[in-house]
Amino acid sequence: MKRPTMKDVARAAGVSPMTVSRVVSGDAGTSPGTAAKVEQAVRKLGYQRNDNARHLRQKNPGTSTIGLVVDDLANPFYALMARSVEDEAHRRGYVVLVGSTNDEPRREREVIAAFTARQVDGLIIVPTVGGHAFLKQPMASGTRVVCVDRPAEGLAVDTVTVDNRVGARRAVTHLLDRGHTRIAYLGDRREIWTQAERHGGYLDALTARGISMDPDLVRHGLRSPAQVAAALLSLRAVTDPPTAVFTSNDLITLGVLDGLERPTPMAIVGFDDLPLADRLNPPLTVVSQDPLALGWTAASLLFSRIEGIPSAPRDVVLLTHLIVRSSGEFHGPGRDPA
Amino acid sequence: MKRPTMKDVARAAGVSPMTVSRVVSGDAGTSPGTAAKVEQAVRKLGYQRNDNARHLRQKNPGTSTIGLVVDDLANPFYALMARSVEDEAHRRGYVVLVGSTNDEPRREREVIAAFTARQVDGLIIVPTVGGHAFLKQPMASGTRVVCVDRPAEGLAVDTVTVDNRVGARRAVTHLLDRGHTRIAYLGDRREIWTQAERHGGYLDALTARGISMDPDLVRHGLRSPAQVAAALLSLRAVTDPPTAVFTSNDLITLGVLDGLERPTPMAIVGFDDLPLADRLNPPLTVVSQDPLALGWTAASLLFSRIEGIPSAPRDVVLLTHLIVRSSGEFHGPGRDPA
Repeated sequence: MKRPTMKDVARAAGVSPMTVSRVVSGDAGTSPGTAAKVEQAVRKLGYQRNDNARHLRQKNPGTSTIGLVVDDLANPFYALMARSVEDEAHRRGYVVLVGSTNDEPRREREVIAAFTARQVDGLIIVPTVGGHAFLKQPMASGTRVVCVDRPAEGLAVDTVTVDNRVGARRAVTHLLDRGHTRIAYLGDRREIWTQAERHGGYLDALTARGISMDPDLVRHGLRSPAQVAAALLSLRAVTDPPTAVFTSNDLITLGVLDGLERPTPMAIVGFDDLPLADRLNPPLTVVSQDPLALGWTAASLLFSRIEGIPSAPRDVVLLTHLIVRSSGEFHGPGRDPA
Repeated sequence: MKRPTMKDVARAAGVSPMTVSRVVSGDAGTSPGTAAKVEQAVRKLGYQRNDNARHLRQKNPGTSTIGLVVDDLANPFYALMARSVEDEAHRRGYVVLVGSTNDEPRREREVIAAFTARQVDGLIIVPTVGGHAFLKQPMASGTRVVCVDRPAEGLAVDTVTVDNRVGARRAVTHLLDRGHTRIAYLGDRREIWTQAERHGGYLDALTARGISMDPDLVRHGLRSPAQVAAALLSLRAVTDPPTAVFTSNDLITLGVLDGLERPTPMAIVGFDDLPLADRLNPPLTVVSQDPLALGWTAASLLFSRIEGIPSAPRDVVLLTHLIVRSSGEFHGPGRDPA
């Protein structure tokens, strides 16, 4: 089916294409009668303005489209971030393309290539592990880039993160304050920047109390509930097993909760708050970060670049906070930490 | 900054624009040496293929872009649906624009207008309450439309829903089977199709047992935690208060759980499963639907239309199931249902 053009509408309405353009763009300066004739022709022919064609003819060829690339859109953390980016974009008349990378560099490149091929004005990216030199080309062509949640290695762009290391240190210190000395660390791949930072915070807290890290209590690379369950089992088989665990993201926290009996026989503090965390037995103590604020901040930085702000790259760090409920207090059976 | 054209790349590489086009599109038939020269020039100039321009020149002017319009992308249910649509689109070489409506018809129209102005090949929509005749124009111009989660009034298009009425009836029957006869209904706006269906299932279950509906136990229009808390309070002030409640969506279930003491002093069955539902005290019984399957099915229907399948509109209904944990068994204090 041939899409009707502006000329077709002009012919049907008996006016000039310029008049059609004015009415369709909502410009003032057309008489109500003429506007009504044009609108009738638009409806009759099923005409749609083609903004893709329009931007090619304009001096400033923005598409009013940005791309958001996250690890996994189904993760509530990234879903909240996406909603916040979308709201800010909507407010400014932009639309948002979204894509998930699964933290796979190949899919990240595919998604970003598909977005830049559609001439997005900017990209907000949760970068995967690995080099991002491939972004230098779209950036040289005018695509603005902001990183969120993690920095991209070797790429000097605006970046929004949280104080992961401080937050993790605070969580582990909370456990130490409650008498735990055998504290396990369960984390995702340590190559992921946030995970390395949180592991660093775990070590900082132990070091500050003169406790040396026991490699038997540390597990990296947990990406599935099955891996978390296996890690838990192996931890409980350790000589002098841990009485507490620090989990370095929401999915690992959920995995631990699924893998343990109820009430939870081990103290636990997790990074990232969860819905219903305060309804668990015991209620879950967490390090909380604000995905809405991360998304909003990243979008604001991106739009300021699209509008032409020329400063050096900006690093914005948002603060986490510890929400103390009571899962850090809990004492495992057969062991009395204190 | 002027974006470099294919001609600029051809000049820099000393080859024809057609050769550049072949290399950039990944076509075979270019010698490795020539391809390397072109790739070097592409990198040096920062050339990007402009797919927006390309599709305008093609015979079949698809943008390989679809739009997904949900109620609220931050709601985990819609986030899962979006991820599933994105995966299917990615597999087929499409990208996805996403937008949230907040169930406001005005924002829905704005989002859809922004998407159709960018010539999306198709739209997957969770329609708001209200007429959707405005979609007939983009549809006449070739934009394919699929509705998911709810049908759009007055619009004959492919639609994917779940058996809301049967699921709700099953949930309420489960409560009746456990001896409850005073069962409250807490729902969102009844103008929303899914809510009307679930309320219908509630009534069906009561009617089948010869119990007449008590309007004192029914609350519609709950959109915020504060409204849910107020509804709960008012329910407990009723003469002969309910011993059980059926909550008609995940957010209302969360609101009830937040509003009640622990352990929950009222039996509860909710529509939609929640993460950690099995870790609550008591573990939460729910009607479960599969947002990934909803998203995948809607995407499949849409792509079949984009590929030209000409059948009459299709209605696909996916089945819900009741996950029995134990929150339906629980007997409120001061009352022994049985």
